[in-house]
Amino acid sequence: MQIALVVYDRFTALDAVGPYEILSRIPDAETIFVAKEAGPVRSDNGALALIADKTLAEVASPDLVVVAGGPGQSALMEDEHLLDWLRAVDAHSTWTTSVCTGSLLLAAAGLLRGRRATSHWLALGQLKQFGAEPAGERVVFDGKYVTAAGVSSGIDMALALLGRIAGDDCARTVQLAAEYDPQPPYDAGSPQKAPAHIVDALRSRSRFMLT
Amino acid sequence: MQIALVVYDRFTALDAVGPYEILSRIPDAETIFVAKEAGPVRSDNGALALIADKTLAEVASPDLVVVAGGPGQSALMEDEHLLDWLRAVDAHSTWTTSVCTGSLLLAAAGLLRGRRATSHWLALGQLKQFGAEPAGERVVFDGKYVTAAGVSSGIDMALALLGRIAGDDCARTVQLAAEYDPQPPYDAGSPQKAPAHIVDALRSRSRFMLT
Repeated sequence: MQIALVVYDRFTALDAVGPYEILSRIPDAETIFVAKEAGPVRSDNGALALIADKTLAEVASPDLVVVAGGPGQSALMEDEHLLDWLRAVDAHSTWTTSVCTGSLLLAAAGLLRGRRATSHWLALGQLKQFGAEPAGERVVFDGKYVTAAGVSSGIDMALALLGRIAGDDCARTVQLAAEYDPQPPYDAGSPQKAPAHIVDALRSRSRFMLT
Repeated sequence: MQIALVVYDRFTALDAVGPYEILSRIPDAETIFVAKEAGPVRSDNGALALIADKTLAEVASPDLVVVAGGPGQSALMEDEHLLDWLRAVDAHSTWTTSVCTGSLLLAAAGLLRGRRATSHWLALGQLKQFGAEPAGERVVFDGKYVTAAGVSSGIDMALALLGRIAGDDCARTVQLAAEYDPQPPYDAGSPQKAPAHIVDALRSRSRFMLT
């Protein structure tokens, strides 16, 4: 099984590294970070660079595709090289997936039309504009299309996928190895739970972040 | 505020990238991945390479140090270059922290003697051998020393630290931006919760992993 994790300039690192940490434990899986060009790819705040080991062109038929999100996504919404690649690999993939605003790229490629999907909570409106049906869940399965909400939700998505691909015991083993027994010290992880002034502040900041 | 994230060959990527994703959002913080040599550093399974932008020597007095864990840690337990650096930066740091088996490196440097600390659940015995007092919590504060349990627990540690450094509202804002509202599809994230046969299987595998 070949897993392609798609990254690009100004991606959000945890969007990609969360799923990597889980999915790369699939027995006999080959996990590859891919980008338009091979080499270092900088994250949204510039403090992290991850190496794309292969170009999109070099990974032509992955079984599982994970498209990361991040502020850099907005610059790629009309990037035909990337969108064509997404359409081409989707024609053969077993799973086509995304984390955070990565779903906007799948949507821009036309792959989520009429499908239930999700994205970062600040991007659900945009997702709808591309013909997807935004669902208010953290991880949304619609056939082979699996989308996760913001950033950290990719870990939950990957565990759910791992269970489907390699069975519940494999998923539980990887969860235990990663000691994924989350105990957030705050309870502000969704707009429903966070204090209103924090939701509002992020919403007004996002006018700059997401467009 | 300068934050140094210490990585090395065969580190576990999420150990470093979880805290990075949270702590790099501290207003005006400079976040730097550091290693003995600058350049690409490969993760435990080889599928991910992250770039260390600076050498240990170039980052002489970070305010906050995060030491990642991973199988590569075992090769460094007598590495005086790294251990000396840890001692030297600890003399000036505001916070000295670790994720997963990163605490074994802090312990090997003599920094956790007599302190409450934690590590990956499979490494708690080893931690004790170095004079620390293993605590069964996910995140352990003992003065300026903060240690997290396995892999994913670094996210919880970083949020708790962020709250102490920049206040509760900042921590809640970052939690909401990262949509950190975990909903694991399985409940096997700790040895207390996972089925016994899975705990046993990982324990016997770890004889190879951790030594």
